[in-house]
Amino acid sequence: MSAFSRLTPLAASLPSTVPFVGPEAIERNRGLKVEARIGANESGFGPAPSVLLAMRDAAAETWMYSDPENYELKEALAIHHGVARGNIAIGSGIDGLLGEIARLIVEPGTPVVTSFGGYPTFNYHVNGFGGKLVTTPYVDDHEDLDGLLDLVIRENAPLVYFANPDNPMGSWWEASEVVAFARALPETCLLILDEAYCETAPASAVPAIDALIGQPNILRMRTFSKAYGLAGARVGYAIGTLGNVEAFDKIRDHFGMARISVAGALAALKDQGYLHEVVGKISDARERISAIARNSGLSPLPSATNFVTIDCHRDGAYARAIVDGLMEHGVFIRMPGVAPLNRCIRVSVGPNDKLDLFEQALPKVLKAIG
Amino acid sequence: MSAFSRLTPLAASLPSTVPFVGPEAIERNRGLKVEARIGANESGFGPAPSVLLAMRDAAAETWMYSDPENYELKEALAIHHGVARGNIAIGSGIDGLLGEIARLIVEPGTPVVTSFGGYPTFNYHVNGFGGKLVTTPYVDDHEDLDGLLDLVIRENAPLVYFANPDNPMGSWWEASEVVAFARALPETCLLILDEAYCETAPASAVPAIDALIGQPNILRMRTFSKAYGLAGARVGYAIGTLGNVEAFDKIRDHFGMARISVAGALAALKDQGYLHEVVGKISDARERISAIARNSGLSPLPSATNFVTIDCHRDGAYARAIVDGLMEHGVFIRMPGVAPLNRCIRVSVGPNDKLDLFEQALPKVLKAIG
Repeated sequence: MSAFSRLTPLAASLPSTVPFVGPEAIERNRGLKVEARIGANESGFGPAPSVLLAMRDAAAETWMYSDPENYELKEALAIHHGVARGNIAIGSGIDGLLGEIARLIVEPGTPVVTSFGGYPTFNYHVNGFGGKLVTTPYVDDHEDLDGLLDLVIRENAPLVYFANPDNPMGSWWEASEVVAFARALPETCLLILDEAYCETAPASAVPAIDALIGQPNILRMRTFSKAYGLAGARVGYAIGTLGNVEAFDKIRDHFGMARISVAGALAALKDQGYLHEVVGKISDARERISAIARNSGLSPLPSATNFVTIDCHRDGAYARAIVDGLMEHGVFIRMPGVAPLNRCIRVSVGPNDKLDLFEQALPKVLKAIG
Repeated sequence: MSAFSRLTPLAASLPSTVPFVGPEAIERNRGLKVEARIGANESGFGPAPSVLLAMRDAAAETWMYSDPENYELKEALAIHHGVARGNIAIGSGIDGLLGEIARLIVEPGTPVVTSFGGYPTFNYHVNGFGGKLVTTPYVDDHEDLDGLLDLVIRENAPLVYFANPDNPMGSWWEASEVVAFARALPETCLLILDEAYCETAPASAVPAIDALIGQPNILRMRTFSKAYGLAGARVGYAIGTLGNVEAFDKIRDHFGMARISVAGALAALKDQGYLHEVVGKISDARERISAIARNSGLSPLPSATNFVTIDCHRDGAYARAIVDGLMEHGVFIRMPGVAPLNRCIRVSVGPNDKLDLFEQALPKVLKAIG
């Protein structure tokens, strides 16, 4: 074998893997071309024109490292959220921050609670530090708050993950329920409240920042990857107490942010008019995806996100056949990974010309697979 | 305290720190403005015009995640170096890759060998995983290959770091000596051969890729941050055996690369004409920095990098006074962190108008501090 012989026992035990296969890999592996990229919960509407201008302008500065303190972006986010700069931690997307949180809290054997079928990249990071994932099933396609709380207590777990709105199901809880859950958690358990999709959720589903900012066992995760349309820029942030934000400074890659990306995030935050506009487009696209599904006899689930999860009323093999069949038509979508969620497919929003391709392909695929 | 109470014992023991204070932080903390940014070993000459064009074009694609397999960039690098795609691991700069290597190999108490005064970010990552740094001093401002080898054997260390050319001293070893060192290492010790500055080094100082590609205990680190002028883009790579490259896939943040950055790196690699041209400019700038130093009675050290380390013939306090004094004139430079290296200051190359500021300020500063 050509690998170095002295990896840590943990590293040696880990598989070389990827939480999601990228559409580019699917294109290469299957010799197909993606015409409608509506599978990775990116925003086909893209970022604001003002953001593209800012990023193009920032290209000339890319010879410089980005400010390791991320001062300007923290300042802008602090003002935006009505918190202090010290309440904001910046990272390479929520994915990067999840890895850092896992590193801060998880050791081999540490029990970590999440939902069965929840965000795979979180699981990847927990496994990567040797944690023991303990899961509770979704109930009616919602994460089960009571089930999560019970597991946290039973396992004396120091870490629990909960996404609101949820990926992959698109479901959500009202803010009052989220706050009640967060307050019911023992202070010995850190809640990762992943709010990647909060901008596209009903306002009633997003707790006020004030409601949870004082709790040292909560980190709220936000991103510029979804509604802001900057998935490729890798800018996410966590909102938490001063002490928790400082904890990231123990281990993060201080010079790790791309300078153009930070410029893009700053511009995106300034252009709330565009955000408002694009959230309307996302809502319209959700309705159109839902209508397309219904027209084919499938059942779209209610969604607070930038995608629609669609119940195909059969098993995972059937949903997989739909996903694979759509790809034959150049339509890239994804599906949940485990039963019973994997009776569904998951379609991300996008401009109408992309949804046209989905609309044309879906009935053909359903007919072909019977 | 506002921090969560159940960090791992290791995480709890780590300080919140930063390996380098950024120039932006110095500006804020001291109320000064940087007019000549020649301290962070960035390239003030910037990337190629073709690279800026490519990055501006790629802005429109930033709504998409970057290919998690980094296929195109790996392919281009593989062709460039005459290796297989599987010999290339991509990461967020060498800094990001160093963190990943530390994670793969270092556990609490693991002995790790480096030079006393070597790259602080490597030390930061080793400390971040609880490793025990074991160091050998520089000899005549060079990393001491015999000393490193002796320590590796004495400590049965699984990891050794060696930069060629070296930062912060700018010195280098000939390829034959590097290869002899690499081959003399026990196969139970992984050599991180940090070649961040190889493009600006004499060809005779850079071992052929072939010379070391078969050894599972070597990773050669390269970056687009230095000669290619893309420090803010965060693109680095490691060249190693297939097995070692796959090891990164156990733990890396697969979707962590910024899409515009990858486009920039691809364009930079294509424009070898610009690289050749800028290496000439860097060489000229080194000579000019050296002349400026000599004119003030200081002694520039020979450099194979994009900076010149200058012996100020006194102690660390004196060099610090020069660094701080130059900043009063808007000239940002840095200096090595430990004795005896900290008798020196370190000045990065840049365009002539920036070096003019250094030339004007240095005699004033030396006179003022006496």
